[in-house]
Amino acid sequence: MKAGVNRYRVDLRELQFALFEQFKVGEVLGKAPFDAWGEQECRDIIKQSARFGAEVLGPLNETGDRQGCRLESGQVKTPDGFKAAWKQLHENGFKLLDFPAEVGGQGAPKALRLTVDELLIGANTSFSLYAGLTQGAAEVIEAFGTKEQLGRYLEKMMTGVWGGTMCLTEPNAGSDVGACASKAVKNSDGSYSITGTKVFISAGDHDLSENIIHLVLARIQGAPAGTKGLSLFIVPKIKIKPDGSLGESNDVSVGTLEHKLGINGSATCLLNFGENGNCRGELVGSVEHQGMAQMFKMMNNARIAVGVQGLALASTSYLNALDYARERKQGSSFKNWKDANAPRVAIIEHADVRRMLLDMKAKVEGMRAMIIKLGAHQDRAAVLGGSDEEKTAYHRGQVDLLTPLVKAYGSDTAFQVCTTALQTYGGAGFTKDYPAEQYLRDSKIFSIYEGTNHIQAMDLVGRKLGQAGGAHLMQFLADVGSFVEANKDHPAFGAEVKQLAAAQEAVANTAMSFMGWGEAGKLELLPSVANRFLEMMAELTVGWLLLDAGIIAEAAAKKLSAEHPDRKFYEGKKFSALWFAREVLPTVPLKAQLIASENRAALEVPADALATI
Amino acid sequence: MKAGVNRYRVDLRELQFALFEQFKVGEVLGKAPFDAWGEQECRDIIKQSARFGAEVLGPLNETGDRQGCRLESGQVKTPDGFKAAWKQLHENGFKLLDFPAEVGGQGAPKALRLTVDELLIGANTSFSLYAGLTQGAAEVIEAFGTKEQLGRYLEKMMTGVWGGTMCLTEPNAGSDVGACASKAVKNSDGSYSITGTKVFISAGDHDLSENIIHLVLARIQGAPAGTKGLSLFIVPKIKIKPDGSLGESNDVSVGTLEHKLGINGSATCLLNFGENGNCRGELVGSVEHQGMAQMFKMMNNARIAVGVQGLALASTSYLNALDYARERKQGSSFKNWKDANAPRVAIIEHADVRRMLLDMKAKVEGMRAMIIKLGAHQDRAAVLGGSDEEKTAYHRGQVDLLTPLVKAYGSDTAFQVCTTALQTYGGAGFTKDYPAEQYLRDSKIFSIYEGTNHIQAMDLVGRKLGQAGGAHLMQFLADVGSFVEANKDHPAFGAEVKQLAAAQEAVANTAMSFMGWGEAGKLELLPSVANRFLEMMAELTVGWLLLDAGIIAEAAAKKLSAEHPDRKFYEGKKFSALWFAREVLPTVPLKAQLIASENRAALEVPADALATI
Repeated sequence: MKAGVNRYRVDLRELQFALFEQFKVGEVLGKAPFDAWGEQECRDIIKQSARFGAEVLGPLNETGDRQGCRLESGQVKTPDGFKAAWKQLHENGFKLLDFPAEVGGQGAPKALRLTVDELLIGANTSFSLYAGLTQGAAEVIEAFGTKEQLGRYLEKMMTGVWGGTMCLTEPNAGSDVGACASKAVKNSDGSYSITGTKVFISAGDHDLSENIIHLVLARIQGAPAGTKGLSLFIVPKIKIKPDGSLGESNDVSVGTLEHKLGINGSATCLLNFGENGNCRGELVGSVEHQGMAQMFKMMNNARIAVGVQGLALASTSYLNALDYARERKQGSSFKNWKDANAPRVAIIEHADVRRMLLDMKAKVEGMRAMIIKLGAHQDRAAVLGGSDEEKTAYHRGQVDLLTPLVKAYGSDTAFQVCTTALQTYGGAGFTKDYPAEQYLRDSKIFSIYEGTNHIQAMDLVGRKLGQAGGAHLMQFLADVGSFVEANKDHPAFGAEVKQLAAAQEAVANTAMSFMGWGEAGKLELLPSVANRFLEMMAELTVGWLLLDAGIIAEAAAKKLSAEHPDRKFYEGKKFSALWFAREVLPTVPLKAQLIASENRAALEVPADALATI
Repeated sequence: MKAGVNRYRVDLRELQFALFEQFKVGEVLGKAPFDAWGEQECRDIIKQSARFGAEVLGPLNETGDRQGCRLESGQVKTPDGFKAAWKQLHENGFKLLDFPAEVGGQGAPKALRLTVDELLIGANTSFSLYAGLTQGAAEVIEAFGTKEQLGRYLEKMMTGVWGGTMCLTEPNAGSDVGACASKAVKNSDGSYSITGTKVFISAGDHDLSENIIHLVLARIQGAPAGTKGLSLFIVPKIKIKPDGSLGESNDVSVGTLEHKLGINGSATCLLNFGENGNCRGELVGSVEHQGMAQMFKMMNNARIAVGVQGLALASTSYLNALDYARERKQGSSFKNWKDANAPRVAIIEHADVRRMLLDMKAKVEGMRAMIIKLGAHQDRAAVLGGSDEEKTAYHRGQVDLLTPLVKAYGSDTAFQVCTTALQTYGGAGFTKDYPAEQYLRDSKIFSIYEGTNHIQAMDLVGRKLGQAGGAHLMQFLADVGSFVEANKDHPAFGAEVKQLAAAQEAVANTAMSFMGWGEAGKLELLPSVANRFLEMMAELTVGWLLLDAGIIAEAAAKKLSAEHPDRKFYEGKKFSALWFAREVLPTVPLKAQLIASENRAALEVPADALATI
């Protein structure tokens, strides 16, 4: 199969706006730990990533989907072209980007890293999973590994000589991580013998790298039940000799290569560890039973990455639909509908098509703003470097709070945008002649993996809202409140800022009401409304950030000559804000009402009344 | 490829409830033109159809998807097993069901036909398209053909010896039917020479029948532009000799076989007519330029059929997810979440899973109620036989009004239910080990073909609302009003009936406001809100019909012993009604508010402000 054409579309002006104009990454550049980075360096790396996406990864996206992975003699073969692209990706150093300089990384800000990720993932989601999993595993080793482990694994993983995975899920332990049945038994040499079966392992096996470093969650013999008794192990596919060279294979075998709805170029494997009693691993770090905390480091990054995946596919899906809407002629203007001889117009002229396009545009930009805001908080915490505990706690708290929103809202909205994009084409969208159907298929997994969106919602209502005594939430609401106060009489956006205020109040009241539920013994209601609350809070966030962007854009436009090309761009930002504020923000108070109604129907319906079969 | 296992799941008790208990098809049975039909006959045919679906069509659904159709030497080959199933389908007489007795049909009520269609389509949507298109084409010939045409085509099409298609869409005439560029030139022998290209033709070519009778929309030389100048032609794939036997091929060729997201077992073709100047057709009936009216007969039935497709896939997708939720153990009860040793429970015990299940259940039952109500109106009009003009007009008016709701709400909701169903499985739903992903793929086309859902929405707000001076709408609203009046103090459903009243008022006021827009010169706003209005009206309808069903079920349950198996079934109906009334009906007044806000952002955003690329 030959490489195809690049279908990836991205509006770099938009990415630059989020990074430099709205979230002001310039304010952290040049300061430790980002000393080496200036605005030009950021712009250069964005340009390089976009080019790499367009020239190398994009052309492999459709062919990778059609060809898929295959299992040959127990080894996964990736689609044609992936191996060469893997080599180029690492030669370009893209995966060194935000590792610290101490370990050979480039020490870039997270906001930049998230932007680069959007570009690479948008060009080829399946391919990017191999690199993303490797990076995730390397980050865990970097954060928790012994000095010796850093030396043994890190550079090889950062440069793509070795790949990496995260092996958490088991046949009977998916959302219920604590039910993990994989076992580890300590050997006299300090190593552990690992046995167990892991399922749905992304990049679980492949031919891109010389070795694959699996991070495997398992329970050491005698450890307590549940999540507390779990440890994380480094389990290479091929054993590593003391001198760092590769030895014999490590009794890790691919049981199944999954056939899936989408991300067909990504190998999703069932892996068997220690079927022949010869699988050896080493503990991450030197303390047992730290698996859950270590896993969460990995999971949090992975959850943010899923939000970026959603953003990336929604964005290219939108822009492809926009291209089609500009080119495709069909029907005459609504004003001439009675005249059979009226000239045909591009479908972008039709109100319903414009409605779909503006809705997608607003949601894509909202997702991007939420993600770059998260990265900007990470970067500000890093720059503070512990110098101001209160401010650091604020930034870290906002990261914690935003993570489930980025993952769940980002993934649900991505699928919704991809659905709308497909509809924009009419019949053509249903065919494989356009990329819309692949984007739709690829994006469906985002709401499921790295913790289903309900797990995210429970993380939000059950953990994040109450974190630090509720301080993170209060600060978030106060930030929205300050924005409302400053802009409620804004000449262009005043009415919409009032919608924002109503949404903020609804979110605040609903969060408060959950405390009342706790006191009234009604906590069992929480899981049945958690997804809706997450949606409310994400919509509040997106509405806020889009209005903020709109106001920034309006002010910037005023400084430009009438012919400046940015004028149109800024006008587009204004309409994104108006659209979302008018169409989506008013749904937030209603959602609060629905939660307040304490509908128990789903809890009360008897399981055997759901069908007679 | 061997036939697979049947994955189709259906709750026959539910179908019987809709037919006999809610829409009382019994009241038309035994009366002309349904003289030959009693309740037992209906129940028997339902049972037979369900068995045929489970034994013959269901096992071909997954294999048909995987294998797809292929083009060999210009001829489409259908997946293995389709040809044998086609033969059995017609031997069983399923396609004779609602053709009148005069032409050799069985004269069954439409409500029964729609129920049987649900069963056959649910078992295998792709396969059913070949039969559905044939039936649609045969119905047009039956309604508009000359006596000679009836004799030549009808029996052969009803018995599957010949297939049929509807060839409307062209490369530059999709939603814009009037732009049709296919041409017909009358020959001296009364036949017409046809030239043109038709795209996205379902069942456009196949190997199931000896011949295929295409109904082709084309413009006779010299006819006016737009829809008024169109005529419909019978164009057989293979020419038919005067004695009815097959002659030479008719210059109709398959240009492309589409590769699609779903319904892979259904051949979607680009057809070229008359490339060699040798394509002959005959006019449907004997009067030229009637194509649009004839096409609408076909389209209306096809649109209802798309609603049934949506229902069928949503229903089996829901029931498969329910099966999985009953069997799959994961996590412990929310009440024991802190206890790592608490027993694992089936996921149906988790609130979020129950929420998804009850939401799907309610929507599936609501779609079914709307469809069977439509069929019941058709049957009541048929029984009146013109004896009561006013009542007949009422029933026909409700059919007209419900048709776009059935098509658009049925298709959008189907895709939404299929998405929720997939999510219920977690990671397993994304794999091809379960049917959820195929249902999702297959169902996406429903919002597009037979007129996109926006075309349906424009049909509703631009045509149906004002039909008969608005009488159909007023009668619809009055029917809801009578229900509200009768049940607003119902002990079990009173609060929910009040939600219904609020939704009814919102729909009524919004419809009225459209008249105001007309007077104020704001009609250009209509297309941008049409989809939302359709959704409101469909949700009002579904809320009403579910509450009606709930009240019927509650009354029926009271007459049963505590152990009667129907008790649980009726309780399930109650919860469907409560769920939808509490969760969905309250969104209707908000949608009215959003429409009333006259948001012009999508109309005003400059096309070149939608992206800088």
